[in-house]
Amino acid sequence: VQGSKSHSSHHSTRICVKLLTLARDLRRRKARERRSLFIAEGVRAVEELLASPLQVHGTLISPHLCQTPRGVALAELLADRGITTLEVSETELAEVAETESPQGVVVIAAIPERSLESLVLPPTARILVADGIQDPGNLGTLIRTAAALGCSATLLTPGTVDPWNAKVVRAAAGAHFAHPAIGVTWDQAGAFLQGEAVQLWGADAAGDPPPERSAAPERLALAVGNEGNGLSAEARSRVSRLVGLPLASAVESLNVGVAAGILLYELRG
Amino acid sequence: VQGSKSHSSHHSTRICVKLLTLARDLRRRKARERRSLFIAEGVRAVEELLASPLQVHGTLISPHLCQTPRGVALAELLADRGITTLEVSETELAEVAETESPQGVVVIAAIPERSLESLVLPPTARILVADGIQDPGNLGTLIRTAAALGCSATLLTPGTVDPWNAKVVRAAAGAHFAHPAIGVTWDQAGAFLQGEAVQLWGADAAGDPPPERSAAPERLALAVGNEGNGLSAEARSRVSRLVGLPLASAVESLNVGVAAGILLYELRG
Repeated sequence: VQGSKSHSSHHSTRICVKLLTLARDLRRRKARERRSLFIAEGVRAVEELLASPLQVHGTLISPHLCQTPRGVALAELLADRGITTLEVSETELAEVAETESPQGVVVIAAIPERSLESLVLPPTARILVADGIQDPGNLGTLIRTAAALGCSATLLTPGTVDPWNAKVVRAAAGAHFAHPAIGVTWDQAGAFLQGEAVQLWGADAAGDPPPERSAAPERLALAVGNEGNGLSAEARSRVSRLVGLPLASAVESLNVGVAAGILLYELRG
Repeated sequence: VQGSKSHSSHHSTRICVKLLTLARDLRRRKARERRSLFIAEGVRAVEELLASPLQVHGTLISPHLCQTPRGVALAELLADRGITTLEVSETELAEVAETESPQGVVVIAAIPERSLESLVLPPTARILVADGIQDPGNLGTLIRTAAALGCSATLLTPGTVDPWNAKVVRAAAGAHFAHPAIGVTWDQAGAFLQGEAVQLWGADAAGDPPPERSAAPERLALAVGNEGNGLSAEARSRVSRLVGLPLASAVESLNVGVAAGILLYELRG
């Protein structure tokens, strides 16, 4: 685990301060958007990041990382790749980290440029629309689920938490390093879906059970709504159908990530 | 929001100290088991708790609770029900709470007595087996999912986090106030499933896709394994079949709660 150590101590102090300041700054959404950088925390997210094409800017590690063989391997990989690595105390790392247990490693990387315009859909396509999802863990799970079940993208409508929030990145387990998670207005989403002949359905507890797979449209987008309030009025005005799952009783409900997973699987292309 | 205020100040001070001390103590699993008490945090979990038959022991609330109409309604309900209520500062509540945002309310309640012996299965039954699940959020989601999809119980094998951990209770959104979540050894689980003619299947990424619903056994238990390591050796030696979901690519994976949700829905009775 060298990196900063190979520089002169003067230089290394400057890198040190800059990386720490930068990492602290990137806790704010506005700073992430201005700098096009984000933070990934924890061994698994960082492993996935290093395996992705995303450009890595620098790493902060604490002694905690080298307490497991997997952590040691990750530290060696960071050194082999010549990534600027700064050793900090547990306290300094905890100050930077958004998640409760960053497992001794935090990486700063470039947010990939992705837009609706660059999205190419296969003939049979599925898209997930996260409509006002506010819990970072839920959004991360949704993105991970959409990627694993073969969706072409996850569109994020206004009111949804930033997908490059460190807690979202962690819960997504690296899924959106490859899978496009794109922030859109409803007008942009509507125009895109119409132009690409994608039907928009909404998930709602009061909706009909999903039809047989064979009865699903070739191209389908599924909108799932906010944890407490369900789909937004804007979403409701645009969907052509509401689908829901039959539950054991009216008082029960499913976590939004689980509900989306079941519906996307039932309606897979 | 009266409660402690209606007592003499001497009495109220004693209740105060006792409830705070008790709540702090209940952060430890051993204390919960010895006292048969647990803590529910946050508006929704407490609402669900008050709607359940579980016996409530006392409540701690902070000024934060009354910042929303829903919180005010909950405070009024606590007062109407004559539940011992103690007003504390945000700092005191944060010291007691396990979750990041207790939303100004923490309730101490009795853990219901539940055992395999008291479990009565319908002719067509589903059971979820949580095999070494360590993340409280994941276990809570699993219990919530099992309840919503009509499972008769969730069995927790050794190595699984305590279902009465406050983070599990919060993620389960009140599901196991009614749904039995029962800790068992593998020998107990094996004997019970055999005695009740329940087949045991395991979820595994390398398993075959789930069969048609009509081909599923009348009584089926599905075991899902630890987030990092999958099913335990003990589980693998006992399952008669491994089922898994076809994913977009080998590198993708699903959150254990989402995978369990899809499989339980596909195989529902």
